[in-house]
Amino acid sequence: MVPFTHNFADSVSQLGEVALIQHIGIWLGPVSPASPHGIGDDCAVLEPINSGQQILTVDSISYGQHFDASVSPEDAGAKLVKRNLSDIAAMGGTPGPAVLALLCGPDVCTKWLERFFFGIRQCCEHYKISLVGGDISSLAQGNFSAVLTLTGQALRPQLRSTAKCGDYIYVTGTLGGSILGKHYQFQPRLIEGQWLAQHRDCSAQMDLTDGLAKDLKSLLPPATHAALDLSALPIASAAHTLAKTSGWSALQHACCDGEDYELVFTLDSLANCHAFETQWSAQFPNTELQQIGSIRDSSSDGQLIDSATNTALPWSHGFEHLSGS
Amino acid sequence: MVPFTHNFADSVSQLGEVALIQHIGIWLGPVSPASPHGIGDDCAVLEPINSGQQILTVDSISYGQHFDASVSPEDAGAKLVKRNLSDIAAMGGTPGPAVLALLCGPDVCTKWLERFFFGIRQCCEHYKISLVGGDISSLAQGNFSAVLTLTGQALRPQLRSTAKCGDYIYVTGTLGGSILGKHYQFQPRLIEGQWLAQHRDCSAQMDLTDGLAKDLKSLLPPATHAALDLSALPIASAAHTLAKTSGWSALQHACCDGEDYELVFTLDSLANCHAFETQWSAQFPNTELQQIGSIRDSSSDGQLIDSATNTALPWSHGFEHLSGS
Repeated sequence: MVPFTHNFADSVSQLGEVALIQHIGIWLGPVSPASPHGIGDDCAVLEPINSGQQILTVDSISYGQHFDASVSPEDAGAKLVKRNLSDIAAMGGTPGPAVLALLCGPDVCTKWLERFFFGIRQCCEHYKISLVGGDISSLAQGNFSAVLTLTGQALRPQLRSTAKCGDYIYVTGTLGGSILGKHYQFQPRLIEGQWLAQHRDCSAQMDLTDGLAKDLKSLLPPATHAALDLSALPIASAAHTLAKTSGWSALQHACCDGEDYELVFTLDSLANCHAFETQWSAQFPNTELQQIGSIRDSSSDGQLIDSATNTALPWSHGFEHLSGS
Repeated sequence: MVPFTHNFADSVSQLGEVALIQHIGIWLGPVSPASPHGIGDDCAVLEPINSGQQILTVDSISYGQHFDASVSPEDAGAKLVKRNLSDIAAMGGTPGPAVLALLCGPDVCTKWLERFFFGIRQCCEHYKISLVGGDISSLAQGNFSAVLTLTGQALRPQLRSTAKCGDYIYVTGTLGGSILGKHYQFQPRLIEGQWLAQHRDCSAQMDLTDGLAKDLKSLLPPATHAALDLSALPIASAAHTLAKTSGWSALQHACCDGEDYELVFTLDSLANCHAFETQWSAQFPNTELQQIGSIRDSSSDGQLIDSATNTALPWSHGFEHLSGS
């Protein structure tokens, strides 16, 4: 469904900003608390966090870039929330209140926007997130972007920068081919992320958004490389499906496709991997876990090395956000 | 200066996202703290607030909508921060860490962006704000938006909704004609807002962004109106200048122009106005203060009434964010 209308009567500019904000409050229902802890003042007043440290992340979605007319408004709205949730999961956090900036052309269709907010609402209800404020600003006709800033709290925020040479590398789920469906249907790995952040053997973690080949580098300490067992890489069936027509191998899709929204994390080199994997299976029987390699001393061949052949991976990049469209 | 370039070598897409994020860290200098309290992980980890309650606001700026090629990149960047600061001022708060979402066409010029960030940096240094994280996402060519989410803390957040019938209405500074310069050169009324929020006689406050005629309604309790002394309205000299050619009166500019970024607030009906104004002048000798009316019982004639004639103001709207451009 296209977010825009040629019929002025159906557009947000006919409705006007003040009425639109009232509608948004109604559309969001219980996800929109009363002011000052919700929409209606110059700032939202946040409830104090219960414990741990506060964390903050922001993510965007734009029509024509991150979704198109083939995507339902509900899916687009839910995805905006889930992308942010994946960042909270990466830190081992629990989501808190959020604020939303809408950037709308005057021809954005009110009915489309209502369904977009329904997707946001359903997702926020599921994950117990309140939408406490936001901003509406205008763009030229035919444009729509939404930017969500999500707070969270984490007992012990798990960082990317705390991995050490020798640590084992793990990924959750399967990788590649998310464009065939998972990029909307993914479940942010919140409970897994929280559990990992509390586990004494987990040394660092992050989420995979731009592809393993690009993102994994962020977990590597200076002067190290990742020695990867490519035969162990959990290749998604969607990656195999894509490979039939894309000219890429399924392995390349698993390494380079964006939007896996899985966790990649490191386990201390002294950890008992077998015991850890047994704990994991008991905790998360439905979330696959795979050890894919370990962190080794620097190699002149690059940051990502195929440990079977001791050569650099032929692809070391993932999704590039600023390429020409 | 236009934010875009036809020369690929000068564009952000040539630079790429990873290098751009590194550049942004350098451009921001001391305003960009080290991870995890700054750029570099999935979320930013915030330092606990010292006292009071946490507040949160978000605001956007888009090329072609909120600024054009006649505006320097530095002014555009600083304005994005100051718009958010005005919301913090409205609650009587002190600014805290911020996150920034950039939405960039591939042809955004790196040199332009560096200057945009220089404006952000100067403003953040002045107001002691850290930029702790963000997001970069792509738009179609020729597009640029930036969305800043700003945290803050307030000992006692001052709301809009706590004004009462009988209260006096005050505004700071002068109103109207901001398009002639003040919309970039304004100083957010932070210290005034903090002082007011602590003052026992100040019952409610907000900032003026869309014009008094639109914004003042948000301060009125249900079943009340604002009885305004139009002769007391502090009309900016820029409003008089505009009126010479606009076809509007200076008074109409003062009521309807957006982007004053002044405070409008209410004083308890039992307060000693003279004593309050004397205190104000001692505290803020350079910030004008004007009593412009009071809140009265509901009138069938509308929410904004000219108290001299007891008739509704002929204009009761301000800047409309969603009108067609």
